[in-house]
Amino acid sequence: MLLRTQTRVISSLNAVKIACISESVNRILTVKWTDGVAGKFPLIWLRDCSPDISTYTISPAMTARNLTMNEFDVEQSPQNITLDNDREELVIDWGGVESRFSSSWLRMRNPSDELAKQKRREVYLFPETTWGRDEIERNLKTFSHNDVLNDDKSTQSLHDFLEAVCLDGIAILKNGPIGTRTAVEDIGKRIGFIHRTHFGKIFEVSTKAEASNMAYASNGGLPLHTDFPSMSHPPQLQMLHMVERAAEGGNSIFVDGFHVAEQLRVERPETFDILTKHDMEYIEEGYDVHEGPDGQPNRFEFDMCARHRTIKLDERDRVIKIQFGNAMRSWFYDCRPENVQDIYRQVVNPQIFFICHQYLHMNHKTTLDF
Amino acid sequence: MLLRTQTRVISSLNAVKIACISESVNRILTVKWTDGVAGKFPLIWLRDCSPDISTYTISPAMTARNLTMNEFDVEQSPQNITLDNDREELVIDWGGVESRFSSSWLRMRNPSDELAKQKRREVYLFPETTWGRDEIERNLKTFSHNDVLNDDKSTQSLHDFLEAVCLDGIAILKNGPIGTRTAVEDIGKRIGFIHRTHFGKIFEVSTKAEASNMAYASNGGLPLHTDFPSMSHPPQLQMLHMVERAAEGGNSIFVDGFHVAEQLRVERPETFDILTKHDMEYIEEGYDVHEGPDGQPNRFEFDMCARHRTIKLDERDRVIKIQFGNAMRSWFYDCRPENVQDIYRQVVNPQIFFICHQYLHMNHKTTLDF
Repeated sequence: MLLRTQTRVISSLNAVKIACISESVNRILTVKWTDGVAGKFPLIWLRDCSPDISTYTISPAMTARNLTMNEFDVEQSPQNITLDNDREELVIDWGGVESRFSSSWLRMRNPSDELAKQKRREVYLFPETTWGRDEIERNLKTFSHNDVLNDDKSTQSLHDFLEAVCLDGIAILKNGPIGTRTAVEDIGKRIGFIHRTHFGKIFEVSTKAEASNMAYASNGGLPLHTDFPSMSHPPQLQMLHMVERAAEGGNSIFVDGFHVAEQLRVERPETFDILTKHDMEYIEEGYDVHEGPDGQPNRFEFDMCARHRTIKLDERDRVIKIQFGNAMRSWFYDCRPENVQDIYRQVVNPQIFFICHQYLHMNHKTTLDF
Repeated sequence: MLLRTQTRVISSLNAVKIACISESVNRILTVKWTDGVAGKFPLIWLRDCSPDISTYTISPAMTARNLTMNEFDVEQSPQNITLDNDREELVIDWGGVESRFSSSWLRMRNPSDELAKQKRREVYLFPETTWGRDEIERNLKTFSHNDVLNDDKSTQSLHDFLEAVCLDGIAILKNGPIGTRTAVEDIGKRIGFIHRTHFGKIFEVSTKAEASNMAYASNGGLPLHTDFPSMSHPPQLQMLHMVERAAEGGNSIFVDGFHVAEQLRVERPETFDILTKHDMEYIEEGYDVHEGPDGQPNRFEFDMCARHRTIKLDERDRVIKIQFGNAMRSWFYDCRPENVQDIYRQVVNPQIFFICHQYLHMNHKTTLDF
């Protein structure tokens, strides 16, 4: 997706030439293009990012900076700066090293261009909108299982499916296989690596006698939750495939936890405050029996705990993670006993979740690492 | 480790009986023990954590709260509170549900006991000390490979080894196998799940022609780094096993990144400030050829990027993560061009790393999820 974005930006810039360069001021060089756009380029940044073979290894198998911190002089200055190839390249002589930057390379990375910065930020596919009930019903994207899984000539379906998962938090594959238990694994192999957990490589949810998880226990519906709250870093994506229809019930209902968080931020600031500032602890103890590395059924004992805020914010106060599961919520509150009743009033308050029509699953949006 | 800690605490408390209970004030019940210790227990906490079979499923395979948020009244009060079994149990009648708390259960979880809180916090094995050169040389713990891998009668060696990894950030296994390539995988299976990456399940570092990583390239030493800076959540533990001695060189040198961070906090606050407040971006593009899911060599293309602070702090300003790799450091700085030179002065400054004698690897301490 990185290359795709870069290609899109570059193609629109190939026609623009460099008009002139100015003397550097405070170690910043100004480049002006023929269409009137200007860019400020710190000298040390130009040296550090120089696409020459002593600075970078650029091969099909790897792109990596060769320079180490020990040999890099952060105060170095160019010996000579020129324009070459009919003003399509900026050429800098650092004394022993020559840097050649094409006009489009510089435009795409222009450190003073807000649009270039914005495009770069979009590479991370941060969800810009959240979904209530109406939006989910209206906007939920569906893709053909066959196109996403098998179309090797064009990866457009796969790309659009993954983009929807990252930006919307959820997407549907239609016309999946019937009568197979490998569907989830097959999609996992198609898009990345499967994050094995203490329930095995694939977690088959069915009612069983020795239930090691509430999803195994036949007690009606599950309350709203995110999976694996007892882990600091649970798997980032979840896939569900219905192998067999339940005799009764069997609905899966989803809610955009980011949407609930944004509603709380506005409508119940005191709840938002407690959920973003107080750690909750989750404990998961027990065992599960599933196929082990030797291919035989093995008993996997687990005894895990994790502590985190229900709503996690980043440095810009954006919601970046939701983690909550009442079944595994612990007895431990790291606060004064006098605060406990109030935490319960805010956290374990059914009114909060009535907002989202008691959807069964909370979806925790995160982006793909890979 | 959770159970181990709990067992240790419980055993010292079994002899203590409850002396009396007081009327609840502000929905908090006070329990006094025969040794003079008192505890404040919020009523709603007692209801929520009640170890009865309607509130909790407690089986060998699972411990989980049955209550959902929808059916839970956060303002409910007991109908009757008594002491039973010669003052060894607190019994609460909630009207339809009876909670029985043993004296030791309450003591271990006493919400107003600072020692109990402290013991609970220690379950997370947060590293309390950092290591400079002298400490590493003096304190580095070594364990017998055979004991850790094979001793099924006692898990003490395995426990102590993992505790050292979590608290010290590094530990050594002695007398490992010679002439095998499965040593790393075997230990991985012994302690948890292996986090597969784009370099395969196990990353065999050797010089090769189509180098897809600086570790493959034969160009002398590698500068200080943490692995996979292009991932938001890199694997949490790393294991190294030397399969074959290099003809020359081949030293591995480690540094405690937490130690460097703490030194910077005191000695170079302006550097610490930039490293904790400015995101750095890392890009990793290329391909690697290794065994795929079908057992055959496959070409795995990767095109990843991640953005994070070099030193990550938690809410209490404690260092919780170090991520840095100069080879994959990107051209993108999400700041004004005027700030770039100063970021370089602080980040790409060899003097910082001279403090730690130019150790080759930076160790990023994190705790085990499992």
